[in-house]
Amino acid sequence: MSESSGASFRVGLLGHGTVGAAFEALIADRADAVEHLTGQRPEVSGVLTRSRGDFDEILASSDLLVEVMGGVDPAKDYVLRALSAGKHVVTANKQLLSRHGAELWDVARENGAQLRFEAAVGGVVPVIRVLTESLAGAHIERVHGIVNGTTNFILTRMAETGASYAAALAEAQALGFAESDPTDDVSGADAAAKMAILARLAFDTTVDFDAVRFEGIEGITSDDLAYAQKLGLSLKLIGTAERVPQDDGTDGINVRVHPAFLYAGHPLASVGGSFNAVTIESPAITEITISGPGAGGSQTASAVLGDVISAMIPPASTPQPRHQLPIVEDVPSAYYLHVEVEDEPGVLAQLAQVLGLQGISVKSFVQQGEAEHAQLSMVLHPVVESRLRGAIELIDGLPPVRARPRAIRVIEEQFAE
Amino acid sequence: MSESSGASFRVGLLGHGTVGAAFEALIADRADAVEHLTGQRPEVSGVLTRSRGDFDEILASSDLLVEVMGGVDPAKDYVLRALSAGKHVVTANKQLLSRHGAELWDVARENGAQLRFEAAVGGVVPVIRVLTESLAGAHIERVHGIVNGTTNFILTRMAETGASYAAALAEAQALGFAESDPTDDVSGADAAAKMAILARLAFDTTVDFDAVRFEGIEGITSDDLAYAQKLGLSLKLIGTAERVPQDDGTDGINVRVHPAFLYAGHPLASVGGSFNAVTIESPAITEITISGPGAGGSQTASAVLGDVISAMIPPASTPQPRHQLPIVEDVPSAYYLHVEVEDEPGVLAQLAQVLGLQGISVKSFVQQGEAEHAQLSMVLHPVVESRLRGAIELIDGLPPVRARPRAIRVIEEQFAE
Repeated sequence: MSESSGASFRVGLLGHGTVGAAFEALIADRADAVEHLTGQRPEVSGVLTRSRGDFDEILASSDLLVEVMGGVDPAKDYVLRALSAGKHVVTANKQLLSRHGAELWDVARENGAQLRFEAAVGGVVPVIRVLTESLAGAHIERVHGIVNGTTNFILTRMAETGASYAAALAEAQALGFAESDPTDDVSGADAAAKMAILARLAFDTTVDFDAVRFEGIEGITSDDLAYAQKLGLSLKLIGTAERVPQDDGTDGINVRVHPAFLYAGHPLASVGGSFNAVTIESPAITEITISGPGAGGSQTASAVLGDVISAMIPPASTPQPRHQLPIVEDVPSAYYLHVEVEDEPGVLAQLAQVLGLQGISVKSFVQQGEAEHAQLSMVLHPVVESRLRGAIELIDGLPPVRARPRAIRVIEEQFAE
Repeated sequence: MSESSGASFRVGLLGHGTVGAAFEALIADRADAVEHLTGQRPEVSGVLTRSRGDFDEILASSDLLVEVMGGVDPAKDYVLRALSAGKHVVTANKQLLSRHGAELWDVARENGAQLRFEAAVGGVVPVIRVLTESLAGAHIERVHGIVNGTTNFILTRMAETGASYAAALAEAQALGFAESDPTDDVSGADAAAKMAILARLAFDTTVDFDAVRFEGIEGITSDDLAYAQKLGLSLKLIGTAERVPQDDGTDGINVRVHPAFLYAGHPLASVGGSFNAVTIESPAITEITISGPGAGGSQTASAVLGDVISAMIPPASTPQPRHQLPIVEDVPSAYYLHVEVEDEPGVLAQLAQVLGLQGISVKSFVQQGEAEHAQLSMVLHPVVESRLRGAIELIDGLPPVRARPRAIRVIEEQFAE
């Protein structure tokens, strides 16, 4: 169903792996629809890979560049040169944006070029557009996200089957949900890069990758998941970016990634498998949750195409940050705490005393096991991390405690429905 | 934190009920943020209510009109006059758009004015923007939505507490989730108007309110919910807009609203209380689900503000429909079927024979009750509605059947995670 052949819009493609190939197929398939929308027919005007294509030729012959190479070098150089030449760029490169975003956005603004990056965060989940357009005027308090499909798949399988971390990782690798070297995903680094980008947009302040603290899922055991299910909790690798009031009354922010338990009512608790999801909290809207498949070739290509079409229609630029909010490190969280003890009289009193000393109160509590080997699982009301760490040191030193206590954060439902 | 006072952007406000008052407060609160983003400071330049304001004066002194009066008259006249004058309009008016959208979009396009309407569908859920921008180039197969908060609240309470429909409706009214005359919500008409708008955008074809078939929740009993919970199903009022292949191989569409059961794995199954949610299905992306609170004053005002900001920055218009897809009425669905019988030998064989005659097969089955009053609950594999209706007539005529069989559609999980 070919329509009238109007002007063409030339897209240069940097990278031709899974995403690049899927994008080339998608743009051919949807050319009629895009021409109807925009009046211009998109076409791939050149492809650059390690073995073919010339960057300068592609740049000169394109109206817009799509960068799906990944990594910082040479992607950064290419993107900077394109933006400096006033060419729009659509990228899926979270490493590049989380480490050099401020510079790239500056260059884009100075040259009247658009830099769009929906595909860098959240797979098909259009969180960048919702944050920057739907919620452009909103005061955002917090963003919670499951932004790494690999780790969500592993944790889902551990919970469903009782598999160990190693077995679930091996299954993810066999199914193509994890790389042969899974470090970037399982360490939380991939999610941290995405949360740096989301925090930049949510709070309109500069946030570099190095400002994000992250913990991975390598240390999670199937026991953690089994005990917690008894408390109605499910475990996710959660990225959080939130405002934190400082002592002088002004706002700071905290951006972090770590495993956390969620109560069944939380919008992210039911997000399973390799899906991604992001919840945005703001007083005026309460919350919006967006979920969908994590990054796959055609999913990422679809996000790229949405950005290309937007670049074909209206101008939009990421303005300079309005604020320079400080990073706050020691923030409160509820915790799940697991302690293995000899079941001797008085141990509960000792635990309660230690927690009380640190100003920590217990929300719920389960005891299991027999005389010589009892397991105490509890959920603690919110406490700043430094106090929790202090309590763990003290508990670890109590004679009846048989192993180092295990602590995992719990995300409590913030809003009643 | 007032910034430099740049140019002002004048917003005329038509209507000053809950939403209008919330919008006026929100735009004052966020004026600094909007000025930073857009370079223009938004201000309310006039308010029209039944008792104050003059439309022509407000139109002349505004850069954009926000229409939150509701209803078709006089809103339609005002919106047409504004668009004809080349002024942008942001509206939350689903009745107006679902009945006269084609005319309004034409006038907007002809006059280079923007008509934005995120607040008309889904409360804070930014489904309009995601459909028209993120997925602008996507081939969309289906949209499923919980787009009415009142009915979702009532069904959630019936499921949670075993309350009757009448009792749950009374509770919703007492809490302000339902109007004193709830007809528009509980009949499905409100959801039908929203689905007409979503179908127009998803399929790029003209869809009028009259093309949407709708059933409400007035006939739902607490027994329906209790039996279905044993099958792992939850009941929602679901709006559906989907492509339906016709006999000649071309696409038709079907748009409808009715109560439907969802399996626990469906992304909409866990959406409780007065929340709204929409799932968009497309081959390239699998699916995106967006959820958030249904319409409330500040939520709707936030959606309006997002549209106002977008209108302040770039031009965008809804293009003329690309297709004229026919409406297809008789579409397949899985069904929950509940039959009350005297527990005599042979009744199951009779039922199986009737279903087999209609080409219907049974997916799962539960029998309860004693000799004189057995209840058979089953889930049927997908069947077109006409065949299901035929089977119900035949079953109703069987001597052992004690009451008219009850059928409720079941939405099956389409995609594995």
